[in-house]
Amino acid sequence: MGSFKGHALPGTFFYVTGIWWTLKAVLKYACKRHKRTSYLGSKALFHRVDIVEGIILVCMALTGMLGEQFITGGPYLSLYDYKKGQWVQLLGWHHTTMYFFFGLVGVADILCSTISSIPASLSKLTLSNALLVEAFIFYNHTHGREILDIFVHQLLVLVIIVTGLLAFLEFLIRHNVILELLRISFILLQGSWFWQIGFVLYPPSGGPAWDLTDHENIMFLTICLCWHYAFSFIIIGIIYAFVIWLTSGPHLLRGWATSKINAVIQGASLPHVGSFPESKEDYCLFLFQKPSDT
Amino acid sequence: MGSFKGHALPGTFFYVTGIWWTLKAVLKYACKRHKRTSYLGSKALFHRVDIVEGIILVCMALTGMLGEQFITGGPYLSLYDYKKGQWVQLLGWHHTTMYFFFGLVGVADILCSTISSIPASLSKLTLSNALLVEAFIFYNHTHGREILDIFVHQLLVLVIIVTGLLAFLEFLIRHNVILELLRISFILLQGSWFWQIGFVLYPPSGGPAWDLTDHENIMFLTICLCWHYAFSFIIIGIIYAFVIWLTSGPHLLRGWATSKINAVIQGASLPHVGSFPESKEDYCLFLFQKPSDT
Amino acid sequence: MGSFKGHALPGTFFYVTGIWWTLKAVLKYACKRHKRTSYLGSKALFHRVDIVEGIILVCMALTGMLGEQFITGGPYLSLYDYKKGQWVQLLGWHHTTMYFFFGLVGVADILCSTISSIPASLSKLTLSNALLVEAFIFYNHTHGREILDIFVHQLLVLVIIVTGLLAFLEFLIRHNVILELLRISFILLQGSWFWQIGFVLYPPSGGPAWDLTDHENIMFLTICLCWHYAFSFIIIGIIYAFVIWLTSGPHLLRGWATSKINAVIQGASLPHVGSFPESKEDYCLFLFQKPSDT
Amino acid sequence: MGSFKGHALPGTFFYVTGIWWTLKAVLKYACKRHKRTSYLGSKALFHRVDIVEGIILVCMALTGMLGEQFITGGPYLSLYDYKKGQWVQLLGWHHTTMYFFFGLVGVADILCSTISSIPASLSKLTLSNALLVEAFIFYNHTHGREILDIFVHQLLVLVIIVTGLLAFLEFLIRHNVILELLRISFILLQGSWFWQIGFVLYPPSGGPAWDLTDHENIMFLTICLCWHYAFSFIIIGIIYAFVIWLTSGPHLLRGWATSKINAVIQGASLPHVGSFPESKEDYCLFLFQKPSDT
Repeated sequence: MGSFKGHALPGTFFYVTGIWWTLKAVLKYACKRHKRTSYLGSKALFHRVDIVEGIILVCMALTGMLGEQFITGGPYLSLYDYKKGQWVQLLGWHHTTMYFFFGLVGVADILCSTISSIPASLSKLTLSNALLVEAFIFYNHTHGREILDIFVHQLLVLVIIVTGLLAFLEFLIRHNVILELLRISFILLQGSWFWQIGFVLYPPSGGPAWDLTDHENIMFLTICLCWHYAFSFIIIGIIYAFVIWLTSGPHLLRGWATSKINAVIQGASLPHVGSFPESKEDYCLFLFQKPSDT
Repeated sequence: MGSFKGHALPGTFFYVTGIWWTLKAVLKYACKRHKRTSYLGSKALFHRVDIVEGIILVCMALTGMLGEQFITGGPYLSLYDYKKGQWVQLLGWHHTTMYFFFGLVGVADILCSTISSIPASLSKLTLSNALLVEAFIFYNHTHGREILDIFVHQLLVLVIIVTGLLAFLEFLIRHNVILELLRISFILLQGSWFWQIGFVLYPPSGGPAWDLTDHENIMFLTICLCWHYAFSFIIIGIIYAFVIWLTSGPHLLRGWATSKINAVIQGASLPHVGSFPESKEDYCLFLFQKPSDT
Repeated sequence: MGSFKGHALPGTFFYVTGIWWTLKAVLKYACKRHKRTSYLGSKALFHRVDIVEGIILVCMALTGMLGEQFITGGPYLSLYDYKKGQWVQLLGWHHTTMYFFFGLVGVADILCSTISSIPASLSKLTLSNALLVEAFIFYNHTHGREILDIFVHQLLVLVIIVTGLLAFLEFLIRHNVILELLRISFILLQGSWFWQIGFVLYPPSGGPAWDLTDHENIMFLTICLCWHYAFSFIIIGIIYAFVIWLTSGPHLLRGWATSKINAVIQGASLPHVGSFPESKEDYCLFLFQKPSDT
Repeated sequence: MGSFKGHALPGTFFYVTGIWWTLKAVLKYACKRHKRTSYLGSKALFHRVDIVEGIILVCMALTGMLGEQFITGGPYLSLYDYKKGQWVQLLGWHHTTMYFFFGLVGVADILCSTISSIPASLSKLTLSNALLVEAFIFYNHTHGREILDIFVHQLLVLVIIVTGLLAFLEFLIRHNVILELLRISFILLQGSWFWQIGFVLYPPSGGPAWDLTDHENIMFLTICLCWHYAFSFIIIGIIYAFVIWLTSGPHLLRGWATSKINAVIQGASLPHVGSFPESKEDYCLFLFQKPSDT
């Protein structure tokens, strides 16, 4: 991975995955809110999507593992060179291990969606596992490099650990859409940060790399990470607004409007005092207890 | 921010915000406890207050960002000086980034209160985010300074991280008034600690700064932080007592009194054995399950 | 506190408090399990006990604060000596601050038990606060001492932080008797560890202190802490067994016995198949859902 | 323990325990899912198994403690050699202390299963305790050794701490089969990692030990731990599949099949529209709320 492409590839992978998961999470949330009657139908659809997603994940992980092993200069599945008495291409093996655990996420996705005796939360757990294993490997990855190189990788490890812990929290507290989007925002952040690392360590313009010992660069990359994070927030916000607008027709304030209409309809046949609290309560339920009943 | 005013300003901002949030939280709690029938009316009021609060927050964040950029000697929106080959005023950009994330809190406040399809917990999450981003930036802020300078900023980072984690906990466990007040007490602590940092590093009397290498000063500032914390506890206690006294009329022990009166009233028409446990139970509910039903 | 007595005193205080809390927690638990009908009466009793406990705590904290200030060589309430230009007896002020926060626990105990508008969980929160403040102060307490001196204080800080976090967990998850006893076991551990520190640093036999630079001593004190911990477990176990035996009469296996008797009684009038699952289920409920309904 | 056998023995112990716990957890889960009517009978069986398990644990801990004390060159219960003025065999005492806390787990298992007044969660708590005490002792165990020796023990401490925290989480959130299996996977990892330490530090082939100062070896052991972890995952997966296949007869997709059959049966006597949603809902409940109702 010691090149710009080697960082751009996983970055693109995480970014695309993040955007796809955002779409899925918001769609699921919108379906639950609006189409309560036809919900069971969409649930079957989401199951099929999960299976396809799992298969794609497994294929990508396999490609990554084979790629890491059989590129020119790769380890070609040999681990220890007994002649020279040293390990062969351990960094390549590191990446292979990471890909393997992301492959397990795909396997868990497929199993959870096809076999009913496996609890659905297994999928979240393997994701959390894959991320924490990735963080653990990256933590022991950058021995004897320059201060800035270590710093950008430390930030990456921080981002991955937070993502892993959030995925574990999701495993415990399920069906909280905000928590899910938060975890996805960190996946997006990881994706764009891979790109940033590529630009810092292997400038694609061909120019010289950044001064790896300058402390000012560390000061800049600190806020740069925050800007990346803000950007991933904005991306998710745009997707959220777009999907909600798409699924709810012309009125964004549908919940309020529906309760208003209900009140009007009921007000025509029933005395106002009796009907109003009911519709009002329904409105409050939408507004205040959404995360708990989603 | 390298001046007394630069520390007094955010300190005052956090202190005023903290006092305002205490008032709001205690009022909300008191409204829920006493006026169960007219509660829906006050909920609409609180919504309007949230919108105004969000607008004020956005304005303050914008002012802060523009101020940091366009004060004399500020970066004037330029990030990198290509002539000199160095970054321009990175500390100013650090502060701008922090203000931006607090501005996002305001935006989330407005969105949560106006659009019904957005879960209300988003507001807590952005607050937690803004605080943790602030802590992250402050952590990488004090390179190459004196030991005491680093120590007071480390304490600040500790306070901010705890506040951020408490806000995240509030995002998960909602409607717990004690947890909310705890988080606010740390906001107050942060406010007064900014003042303390100002006094330590840039004494407004014009006298010399504290001896930045003396370990005794570190020993004192350790307990000084605790005193600031105790002070913020007392402030919140006074506001709590005042608001509860204001909303409950002359009797602070209203819950007990009400149940007593109920028992007397019911005791007049019903046999004592049947009525007493019921009112007693109501009393116990007030006393023991308050946090769960607020 | 730089003497054997200065460590034995807080040690004894924490040990006595711990044993008292164990008694109270187990009694409360036993009352809830056995006397469901007369439970309300015992609840009023526990309230009065809480008030007395709070008053005792406040008195002890006041005594401690005054003692630290006005012993021979104490700071006598003066903080800064302007003539010499240095702080006065900062270690004494450290201890005063710790006592103050434990006094706040007493105040919260009294307020929670007398004023019904204050949530009962405030008491747990102030305890957690007092412990974490104590840990924070101890952490910045041992600058420039020998390695063994620092190590025993580090272990103390570790114990106090764990206790504080457990108290905070209790604030969130209430009415879990095992969690409460776990927190108390750490209070006991803190008490006996204070004694251990006294023995290590200021041997009461008048002999020379331990070799403060010997690494073997660190190895021993590591397991010594574990033995203290095991001892506090055994103390709590004995109290638990004693109280349960006292409140349940001659049979410890009362739950099982009762269900057996019920089955026999019901079996006399009803067909066996119908009655057995019911009494069995009751038994299972006792055994499996105890912590959730206590 | 300074030999290959000294590491292989606890490794085997943890591995066997882990496999046994996996079998028990999956069997319990399968029993709960399929045989709801005959479940109470199997519950009594599991109780008896717990008692036997507790007795075995106590015996193993006693054997371990006596073995550590009375092997040739062991401390023979003497702690301090007053003649030489030094501690006797502290590492042996370390191991004795660890075994003691695992013995407590056995005692708690027996007590929880026989005495109904003790909450069942005590068993999980003592397990968490034993693991965290083990981690604490191992953390202070490897003073003054080579870098690779320290590294493999640090990884061991990391694994044990995570296991302890997961056991504590299980104490709070009970009856979550995935969480239980996750904790067991770390027990298995600990077991196989003990074997790995034995191979690295005391090669059984009699050849020279690994180069303890080579950084490449650290890089390899990092991913080696991940492979061990993946292996423990696969072991658990195989056991899970085997037990579920054993308890559910020829069809793995029993839940789906049952609901299908139900729908067909009900569809014969009732109108399709009314019966389908009911069976469908039952199916969804199986798939989505399993962890909460297990």
